[in-house]
Amino acid sequence: MPGKSPQFAASGVVTLTTDFGLKDPFVGVMKGQLVARFPGVRIIDLTHEIPAHWPAEAGFWLARSFRYFPTGTVHVAVVDPGVGSTREIAAVQAEGHLFLAPDNGLLAAVFESAAGVSARLVAGSLLARLGIDAPSATFHGRDIFAPLAAEIAAGRLSPAEVGEPTTALVPGWIEEPLIGAGQVTGTVVTIDHFGNLITNIEPRHLRALAHPLVRVAGREFALRRTYSDVRPGEYLALVNSFGVLEIAQAERSAAEGLGLARGAPVSVVAK
Amino acid sequence: MPGKSPQFAASGVVTLTTDFGLKDPFVGVMKGQLVARFPGVRIIDLTHEIPAHWPAEAGFWLARSFRYFPTGTVHVAVVDPGVGSTREIAAVQAEGHLFLAPDNGLLAAVFESAAGVSARLVAGSLLARLGIDAPSATFHGRDIFAPLAAEIAAGRLSPAEVGEPTTALVPGWIEEPLIGAGQVTGTVVTIDHFGNLITNIEPRHLRALAHPLVRVAGREFALRRTYSDVRPGEYLALVNSFGVLEIAQAERSAAEGLGLARGAPVSVVAK
Amino acid sequence: MPGKSPQFAASGVVTLTTDFGLKDPFVGVMKGQLVARFPGVRIIDLTHEIPAHWPAEAGFWLARSFRYFPTGTVHVAVVDPGVGSTREIAAVQAEGHLFLAPDNGLLAAVFESAAGVSARLVAGSLLARLGIDAPSATFHGRDIFAPLAAEIAAGRLSPAEVGEPTTALVPGWIEEPLIGAGQVTGTVVTIDHFGNLITNIEPRHLRALAHPLVRVAGREFALRRTYSDVRPGEYLALVNSFGVLEIAQAERSAAEGLGLARGAPVSVVAK
Repeated sequence: MPGKSPQFAASGVVTLTTDFGLKDPFVGVMKGQLVARFPGVRIIDLTHEIPAHWPAEAGFWLARSFRYFPTGTVHVAVVDPGVGSTREIAAVQAEGHLFLAPDNGLLAAVFESAAGVSARLVAGSLLARLGIDAPSATFHGRDIFAPLAAEIAAGRLSPAEVGEPTTALVPGWIEEPLIGAGQVTGTVVTIDHFGNLITNIEPRHLRALAHPLVRVAGREFALRRTYSDVRPGEYLALVNSFGVLEIAQAERSAAEGLGLARGAPVSVVAK
Repeated sequence: MPGKSPQFAASGVVTLTTDFGLKDPFVGVMKGQLVARFPGVRIIDLTHEIPAHWPAEAGFWLARSFRYFPTGTVHVAVVDPGVGSTREIAAVQAEGHLFLAPDNGLLAAVFESAAGVSARLVAGSLLARLGIDAPSATFHGRDIFAPLAAEIAAGRLSPAEVGEPTTALVPGWIEEPLIGAGQVTGTVVTIDHFGNLITNIEPRHLRALAHPLVRVAGREFALRRTYSDVRPGEYLALVNSFGVLEIAQAERSAAEGLGLARGAPVSVVAK
Repeated sequence: MPGKSPQFAASGVVTLTTDFGLKDPFVGVMKGQLVARFPGVRIIDLTHEIPAHWPAEAGFWLARSFRYFPTGTVHVAVVDPGVGSTREIAAVQAEGHLFLAPDNGLLAAVFESAAGVSARLVAGSLLARLGIDAPSATFHGRDIFAPLAAEIAAGRLSPAEVGEPTTALVPGWIEEPLIGAGQVTGTVVTIDHFGNLITNIEPRHLRALAHPLVRVAGREFALRRTYSDVRPGEYLALVNSFGVLEIAQAERSAAEGLGLARGAPVSVVAK
């Protein structure tokens, strides 16, 4: 999506999004490498509980979260089943933010939705120049992404220097909602900690529907403003604080209550 | 509890206590908003695993934890089933610390136990003045609490400016132990990571009992000093490091061993 | 292991490794005490999900992780079933890093494998001198380790001042692999978040085996370089990014697939 976009000017902030979990020292040693290269770095965890080997969810959340961080933030996302293979590393610049991730579809959501976006593939020659000389074959988060992010966050390496521009990143894994006559059909992309069903349907998809009614698991719900608009235990649908349609059960888990999981279809029709 | 209490002087430290979990980017974007407003902020997670929609446990831990942080800390606690409704936001000042939370009983434990405490309700007009102009209806942690905490932690907003004083916060959800003749009866408030049963009984409740004996699940335990005072697998009771009575099983889970959960009754009698 | 080793010069970084989990405020109040004593401290969590009361795994990961942090880092590890008993506190200096832990075998892996290592036992008189005057009997992480680490990380206390030198720390709990004629037998030390089986076998143990073949659960695997060298669902063995033999299943959990747990034997034979 072309458009005016502020240039990236490093703020010293780095966010981390991975499927590493917090059980092992994987995230900790990534932070060790960040702070070893750039003692002034400010590291913020976005999440480390992306489903294993599922880059789509990392991109989904990152595209909807990055604007809550200061411009000049470096967002590192490592969900990387192809680590050590020939897959490339993508660097995407958008709205004054910089994103680093394996080029496996993870950054498609950012690339397709952010304004004034541009992308580059990280050059192998850059790594040698930064002293990243013997990365392991299985942990590029620690051995490549962390040092690279540290150099950019410290303002010692500009995004334009990382490699050649590209316009063809690996596409995303999440399909757009299907927009038909009087009906929009999307899917549950993820289920949050509270059991809320979070979909890929945005308000812009619903413009043609005057009084939208959400159909899921054989039930129908009108759109509400917030959870406490219904009584505890009742279901509701709303456009959530990340700008997507969500099905919830007040003070309960809609996922458990409706018996639904990631990938379940959700339709919105006109009343 | 009136008394002398140091004035709040911002230290730049903010603690976070929520029921958001760490699976989703909810905590991450709160931190993004904190650092966007106040780049020098020092954020410490107290816990994000409060049981969903259960403010009582957040208050229980906060009241017993805040003194381990430097004075001048802003403690933000968001367990908020009424988000987007007409519930107020409370700002409590105590012992040189400042607490922000929905006024839903969460801060009752701090309000009732800390010294020199005072409370205010956050004025709607303040939010507009701080540029918090279009908060979502469902995520005030990110859209209201984080920017408000950042302003206070940065020393740009004093606790006295947030709104009008009040002496009537919403009361807490945890009842005080019942003190009878030769017997005190409390409840298990929470079970910790190790399976220890943590109660609401404090040493001051036991003053009248010369040789206290703890009765739970049909068994009796004498008070010990530490876990290794008994052999692995044996049960014990002790006043734990947060000043409340705890029932433990050395190197095992007392909750599993005794088959007890949150809410179980615990009595202490004189031997 | 004697050898030349840089002196410790505080970098202001402290890492934390515990079995406390993240559910309760235990880690948070440790950080509160660190920042209260040393506002400039930079705290990095290595992990808080060490199996309860199992210091061996903390030492295993710490010995393989510490070099990814800047020299001058203070590594605090608290897995402490003997808290409040007569167990000592060990301070180990190695390769410009400083380690603090209960003397219960936790630091054996560092002590035995790092270069130019030296150890001291923390003197009781030191604690009084630092104003650590009434530690609880059950939470030394907060009441002793955090303030001690803060003083060292701030550069106000040198490792040589903590107490008398010792050469006899409590030994570790993990046995070395058994090296026979044409066969090396080790064990699964831990299973990571992805279900990879991580062993105590290092490349140096395999030097005598020209073409090593890994035998586990009645199956045989050749050594590969990275996960994507096989198709999703296939098993492989590799020397992982922490320098130990690992058995994995590409994009799946080898632990689930093979039905194996911590402690399972793993052999390597010559093809």
